[in-house]
Amino acid sequence: MRVIHDSGEMTAWAEAHTGVGLVPTMGFLHRGHASLMHLLRPRCARLVVSIYVNPLQFGPTEDLATYPRDLDGDLRLCAEAGVDAVFAPSSLYPPGFATGVTIGGVADVLEGPSRPGHFAGVATVVARLFGVSRCRLAAFGEKDYQQLQVIRRMVLDLALPVEIVPGPLVRDDDGVALSSRNTYLSTEDRRRARSLSEALFAVQAAARSGVTDVGALTELGVAWLNVDRLEYLSIVDAESLAAIPTLDRPARALVAAKVGRTRLIDNVAVNP
Amino acid sequence: MRVIHDSGEMTAWAEAHTGVGLVPTMGFLHRGHASLMHLLRPRCARLVVSIYVNPLQFGPTEDLATYPRDLDGDLRLCAEAGVDAVFAPSSLYPPGFATGVTIGGVADVLEGPSRPGHFAGVATVVARLFGVSRCRLAAFGEKDYQQLQVIRRMVLDLALPVEIVPGPLVRDDDGVALSSRNTYLSTEDRRRARSLSEALFAVQAAARSGVTDVGALTELGVAWLNVDRLEYLSIVDAESLAAIPTLDRPARALVAAKVGRTRLIDNVAVNP
Repeated sequence: MRVIHDSGEMTAWAEAHTGVGLVPTMGFLHRGHASLMHLLRPRCARLVVSIYVNPLQFGPTEDLATYPRDLDGDLRLCAEAGVDAVFAPSSLYPPGFATGVTIGGVADVLEGPSRPGHFAGVATVVARLFGVSRCRLAAFGEKDYQQLQVIRRMVLDLALPVEIVPGPLVRDDDGVALSSRNTYLSTEDRRRARSLSEALFAVQAAARSGVTDVGALTELGVAWLNVDRLEYLSIVDAESLAAIPTLDRPARALVAAKVGRTRLIDNVAVNP
Repeated sequence: MRVIHDSGEMTAWAEAHTGVGLVPTMGFLHRGHASLMHLLRPRCARLVVSIYVNPLQFGPTEDLATYPRDLDGDLRLCAEAGVDAVFAPSSLYPPGFATGVTIGGVADVLEGPSRPGHFAGVATVVARLFGVSRCRLAAFGEKDYQQLQVIRRMVLDLALPVEIVPGPLVRDDDGVALSSRNTYLSTEDRRRARSLSEALFAVQAAARSGVTDVGALTELGVAWLNVDRLEYLSIVDAESLAAIPTLDRPARALVAAKVGRTRLIDNVAVNP
């Protein structure tokens, strides 16, 4: 497995090895990331994982400085998953970097108002990673469901030559969605963190049993939560993420909340 | 010569014919555009010209509605230049389009303050045209010198797989830079429009004769102008377009002015 630290070297490698599939990550890899690698492995000639904690997508009060890192562990996980090359640049952007990619609509709701500039930072880094890696396929986890929709919008709008492969969210045995940030949780926080997935499963079950009023479904979900601060629990159109009054199409229930000092997100499909 | 009106069809054609070189234009083609086609023709397997008057790059008070158009004439010129396919979409952007590409630094000076949003509109349309056409080469005229530098910045920052080929500015016999907007000029305006290139040539000659004080060179240029409103005559670093006090590196002299109701731009290389 090749480990590459320089953008120019990454591009040269990619141009010498066509058929690149990319799993973009911020490292501190877990089974969720591994599942994306397993998803792409049979579909591409060369599997590349990028590891880069992207400053552009962190707000000034967010956890950029303390974001967990473990490159040695990450490299072991990648090797076991059959990765051909890990792209782990110390700095990704060229001198004088001055380009930004912004997405409206789908990026303006849910996480958007809480994290100004976040999705612009995500879109910008992903556009550059697509360019540097010359990838034809890229996998994104449904854990960051809104991010997945933002990337799909960008790929469609800029006609990028990259197929986006969504990967199902992976949960721990207690139902908590896997996240590098779970490492921040105390034992007590961890117990309360379960209430996010429990709330979403309750919404999903009620929808399955015939409840179609989105207001009622939302209230039901919120009642399950045991968190310190709820940011949103929303049931929205699965593609546009626009508000819907009635569950009359494929939808997604998404939640963001703080447990202790840790901000957690989760989501599930909700179908009528 | 194939004429394509749909983005999906353009991409399918491009993927079936590798080695695309693109000349992006807004139509009403003249010898300046033809020179870009001749520049790329021997360097690419398939030569594509796009013709699209891009609403995103026009300000609310600019000439979008009246921008000159002549598709029949354009197609004749393209056929004569050996173009393989003309991409002339009636609408370029997909439904729900929500992506923007912004460039700082090089886009913030000169044309930037006069035309807010202009270069973001240019960068966005060019990013999409690169994607739709799957081009490996693209030619941009030095007539729009700042635009060329903006596109180079975007390509570098997003690591786009496209080589940018600059084409020399083409002038009419009277020295006026070719521009689709010259069609707006009255005979009297046309005579005064010459003063833009005369001013730039005077700057170039003074630099060649040893003048290095940029303030003095600028004054000398301004004195030549016979226009209704000067927007700027600036001598700047040829790559970053940053202000320089002394001509101690490759520089560019750029001018923008209104003659009658027509806004004209021109530029020349100025070397110490």
